Amino acid sequence: MGVLETIAGPQDLRCLDDEQLTTLAHEIREFVIDAVAKTGGHLGSNLGVVELTMALHRSFDSPATPIIFDTGHQAYIHKLLTGRAGLFGSLRAAGGLSGYPNRAESVHDFVENSHASTALSYADGLAKAFALDDPSQLVVAVVGDGALTGGLAWEALNNLGAAGRRVIVVLNDNGRSYAPTIGGLPRHLERICDRDKYVEVIARLAGDDVETVRRGRSATLFGMLGFDYLGPVDGHDIGALERAFAEAREAGGPVLVHCRTQKGRGFQPAETDVADRLHSVGKVDARTGAPLTPAKPTWTDKFGEELAILGEQRPELVAISAAMIRPTGLWSFSQRFPDRCFDVGIAEQQAVTSAAGLAMGGAHPVVALYATFANRAFDQTLLDVGLHRLPVTFALDRAGITGPDGPSHHGVWDLSLLAGVPGLRVAAPRDAVTLSEELREAVADDAGPTALRYPKSAIGPAIPALDRWRGIDLLRAAPLAEVLLVAVGSMVAPATEAADALAGAGVDCTVVDPRWVLPVNPAIVELAARHKLVVSVEEGMRAGGVGARVAQALADAAMATPVTVLGLPAEFIPHGERAQLLRRYGLDSGGLVRAVLSTYADRIAAGPLSKARLLGRTTVRRVREGANR
Amino acid sequence: MGVLETIAGPQDLRCLDDEQLTTLAHEIREFVIDAVAKTGGHLGSNLGVVELTMALHRSFDSPATPIIFDTGHQAYIHKLLTGRAGLFGSLRAAGGLSGYPNRAESVHDFVENSHASTALSYADGLAKAFALDDPSQLVVAVVGDGALTGGLAWEALNNLGAAGRRVIVVLNDNGRSYAPTIGGLPRHLERICDRDKYVEVIARLAGDDVETVRRGRSATLFGMLGFDYLGPVDGHDIGALERAFAEAREAGGPVLVHCRTQKGRGFQPAETDVADRLHSVGKVDARTGAPLTPAKPTWTDKFGEELAILGEQRPELVAISAAMIRPTGLWSFSQRFPDRCFDVGIAEQQAVTSAAGLAMGGAHPVVALYATFANRAFDQTLLDVGLHRLPVTFALDRAGITGPDGPSHHGVWDLSLLAGVPGLRVAAPRDAVTLSEELREAVADDAGPTALRYPKSAIGPAIPALDRWRGIDLLRAAPLAEVLLVAVGSMVAPATEAADALAGAGVDCTVVDPRWVLPVNPAIVELAARHKLVVSVEEGMRAGGVGARVAQALADAAMATPVTVLGLPAEFIPHGERAQLLRRYGLDSGGLVRAVLSTYADRIAAGPLSKARLLGRTTVRRVREGANR
Repeated sequence: MGVLETIAGPQDLRCLDDEQLTTLAHEIREFVIDAVAKTGGHLGSNLGVVELTMALHRSFDSPATPIIFDTGHQAYIHKLLTGRAGLFGSLRAAGGLSGYPNRAESVHDFVENSHASTALSYADGLAKAFALDDPSQLVVAVVGDGALTGGLAWEALNNLGAAGRRVIVVLNDNGRSYAPTIGGLPRHLERICDRDKYVEVIARLAGDDVETVRRGRSATLFGMLGFDYLGPVDGHDIGALERAFAEAREAGGPVLVHCRTQKGRGFQPAETDVADRLHSVGKVDARTGAPLTPAKPTWTDKFGEELAILGEQRPELVAISAAMIRPTGLWSFSQRFPDRCFDVGIAEQQAVTSAAGLAMGGAHPVVALYATFANRAFDQTLLDVGLHRLPVTFALDRAGITGPDGPSHHGVWDLSLLAGVPGLRVAAPRDAVTLSEELREAVADDAGPTALRYPKSAIGPAIPALDRWRGIDLLRAAPLAEVLLVAVGSMVAPATEAADALAGAGVDCTVVDPRWVLPVNPAIVELAARHKLVVSVEEGMRAGGVGARVAQALADAAMATPVTVLGLPAEFIPHGERAQLLRRYGLDSGGLVRAVLSTYADRIAAGPLSKARLLGRTTVRRVREGANR
Repeated sequence: MGVLETIAGPQDLRCLDDEQLTTLAHEIREFVIDAVAKTGGHLGSNLGVVELTMALHRSFDSPATPIIFDTGHQAYIHKLLTGRAGLFGSLRAAGGLSGYPNRAESVHDFVENSHASTALSYADGLAKAFALDDPSQLVVAVVGDGALTGGLAWEALNNLGAAGRRVIVVLNDNGRSYAPTIGGLPRHLERICDRDKYVEVIARLAGDDVETVRRGRSATLFGMLGFDYLGPVDGHDIGALERAFAEAREAGGPVLVHCRTQKGRGFQPAETDVADRLHSVGKVDARTGAPLTPAKPTWTDKFGEELAILGEQRPELVAISAAMIRPTGLWSFSQRFPDRCFDVGIAEQQAVTSAAGLAMGGAHPVVALYATFANRAFDQTLLDVGLHRLPVTFALDRAGITGPDGPSHHGVWDLSLLAGVPGLRVAAPRDAVTLSEELREAVADDAGPTALRYPKSAIGPAIPALDRWRGIDLLRAAPLAEVLLVAVGSMVAPATEAADALAGAGVDCTVVDPRWVLPVNPAIVELAARHKLVVSVEEGMRAGGVGARVAQALADAAMATPVTVLGLPAEFIPHGERAQLLRRYGLDSGGLVRAVLSTYADRIAAGPLSKARLLGRTTVRRVREGANR
């Protein structure tokens, strides 16, 4: 029986001797590599915090002392040490263990959001609440150096440093987010570590209280903000970490403990992976870290390829990433045009507002973000770009259901947010051909901002149009079609399948891809006038999205044609496989068939002039039952 | 003839001698005090930057060298020096001079957004664009110490410091935003200024290159991020400023020039005003700074009063402000409960995420923001608060048309944004009574987040309800009413007036105030079923707002009742008087009468079962024409 099996909770860690701790760290790494190889998940980031998490749980009494993990994908070890080893077989699967802390799983979990740079603000709030009753109560926040490049972390540091409350910030400095951390901050962190005499020198000569200055108050950026600084500490030396945490606990106010860790530690393929230290993987070979299934070309791949081609043709084209050059497909562009590709850190606001500046300076920036992270820069998109009508193109990857990362990673808000930005046009390509075409149209538009959104998936086969009419692609047509299916981006494929099935059952649909889905093309209103029912479908929140705008456009035109808006409900979508979740919410061809038939039966077949009535209700009922099977 | 009259543009500044400059500074202050006293506007903030702006325009060749003003209300002097003195009579009036830089006014203006902390990111983008062609080209950004507490400024500093491009950051350090700047940063700035020997001491002993360290690379937070640091400089000494700017220009990379200024400088009532140095005023006496018209109680006042009362009753209640304790009405609460009121700096993200932490710790935070600034923390509202279903109440002041501050200050996005946060409930009080009542309901709700939104205006008389039915207040009723008017918050008063006028003309309306406007109360759908036309009206963007959600709820219930959604168009609303702008967009009682009659005529009177048809179309036409007069 290994040591890991004896750990039911943090208390079981505290009686282990050094040898057992070493064994446990080894067992944890074996366990994590093995588990993640089977399910996929965050690997390199967790291998880096094995000793750090062990030391945290030996030093602090969780949950009485909350330990808040920033960017919770680094919390696998925490999960293992808080009684959840047995659940790792279901990691990130529907109904299974979340890839992030989750309050439903454990009292040791506090924050379920996966977005970076938030932990220090939560800690500030918790400390403020605690201080109302018991100012001696501690809060611990674990944050990466990458996350410190995000503005929210700065806002919190500024608050924490001056307030004097008992918050311990554990800086997990591995020098990277995915890629090496950018900016002045990481250079400063390097500098602190390179000069171990630096603090003493300053202490002696700045005339400060020596003990205070020894801790770096005057010598580090954190010290300047009011923190006691402890470190650097070897983040893989449990003893050193525990001594630092003990010292931090003695301080009366805010302390930052600077821990140096190695991402991917203990797994050779991760330690040597130049891309991102196997930050996050699909199912892999547990020995080599190599993917088990060959990767199919994704939307990301195709976007990256096209952008690099466009970069040759358009010298004014530049690209911006918020610490995700590779995951957003910018790698090829960055290699071909290193002077025209900017990683701004985990800093979506800066990505967008610096894009505004670039556009003012004559460039055409393409800001490549995951759709969920675009939410973080709404104000900048609206005012810094939108109000100035600047030619900035947003490339929103992972729009829609993203799958195993869960509620805070699904990109389902982008359409309703972007619809509120006056003058911004949004395209939703349906295949590689339209991605290429719409990206070209976007970067050629110098009248104002544009956005493209596409899902997290392999890119499917081309879906050719029968015709293009006033910017709208016609995909299915029938002379007497009563139903107009308006399909957005990823939903075009299931919509055409559904239309084929419906046609076979006697319900003819016109299927269109508006290509530029926001603002609503007036031609959609004209098309709607020739049909008895409009059904829109999008991989996004149905409230406030494209369908809702189509419905409003029809209402504004005093058109009584009913509009059925299909999309995702106004709720947080759990984690699970993308295809499975789409099916659950009726966003596959079967779901579309059922939805069309059900509204058709209610609104058209029951009406006075319907072809369906001529066909007889039985047909509809039969098809509906068939589709439900 | 004064010196000011000789200044047609920056070039005319450069030939002035010291005496003329002193005279000009004096004339500018007289001019600004006189002009702003007549129109209202930003006073204290502009009086502080007279010499600074003069020195900037003497030192840098605008617009070839862009000068980007953060929080553009500090740009009045810039406007005066770039040929716009003659337009100050129309300051902030509809069609008149903008209170912010505006590209339509001058080639010297770049950024029209009024939100803080953005200038460094624009400058970073501009510098990146310039570097593609001519790396020697300079960019200058002027930013306040208050704005540096915002995370976006940090994100930009981190980028700028490491990049080595030629950006000069002019830090206008007056120690305040409205109130004194909070956090570790201002303490650091104080400390730099207090210790003039500090830099030399460190230079000698840290073994760094002395010249580099003299500029503070190692001794200030900015230095640590990679900036050359110059200062502190007396921001009212034009000669000293010009010398510092000349030195900054010599540097090859990023430089921060730390200028100490006095907010309200040269106007005694501003210099001594403890609240905010007369930051921004209405029409005032140009001698005393006292308001010319007695202030009527506003929504802000009433909110502040109620919150202070609730603070006595609910010890778990805490309040959070992003550097705007007084403007958001928290002053009284902060004085009674200093331990429970938190100013987090110009840092809306931190306001919201620390509120999440406070709620996790057992408090019930009330986050008081202007509606326009709530846009800056959408992601935090959605995920940090919303995903965790935390009891946080947002008090959104200045919701709707705010008037003279223009497009980036109007709070017209909040409803469509908040509608996208699952589990968040929004109330829109119509008067003081419902504000009090709904605020009580909000802070008593511990199941999830809530928001109240109310406009920038005096609070009107009470509008009593005839009845309350399933949470909805019934304000006007008639046995055979065909039109259901759903009025949101500030629109209840004009809606009742409109209903009275319409009733006189033979068109009976039911008027309801849903009180909790989002998510849509299912009782609205039931009410709609008893009417032939639903008209919703809100002081917010009509796309994606309350009316759009009502329309969707009706469509989801397969209800064919037409819904006319009234609100603001999807465009940026210019500056002007609130009442004037509301009228322009049809959001006054006359506009509502016209809108109801027009849809009524189109959709109901033309229909088969209408009372209006019985009355004869002439009535409707007559009323419509009357309303149009």
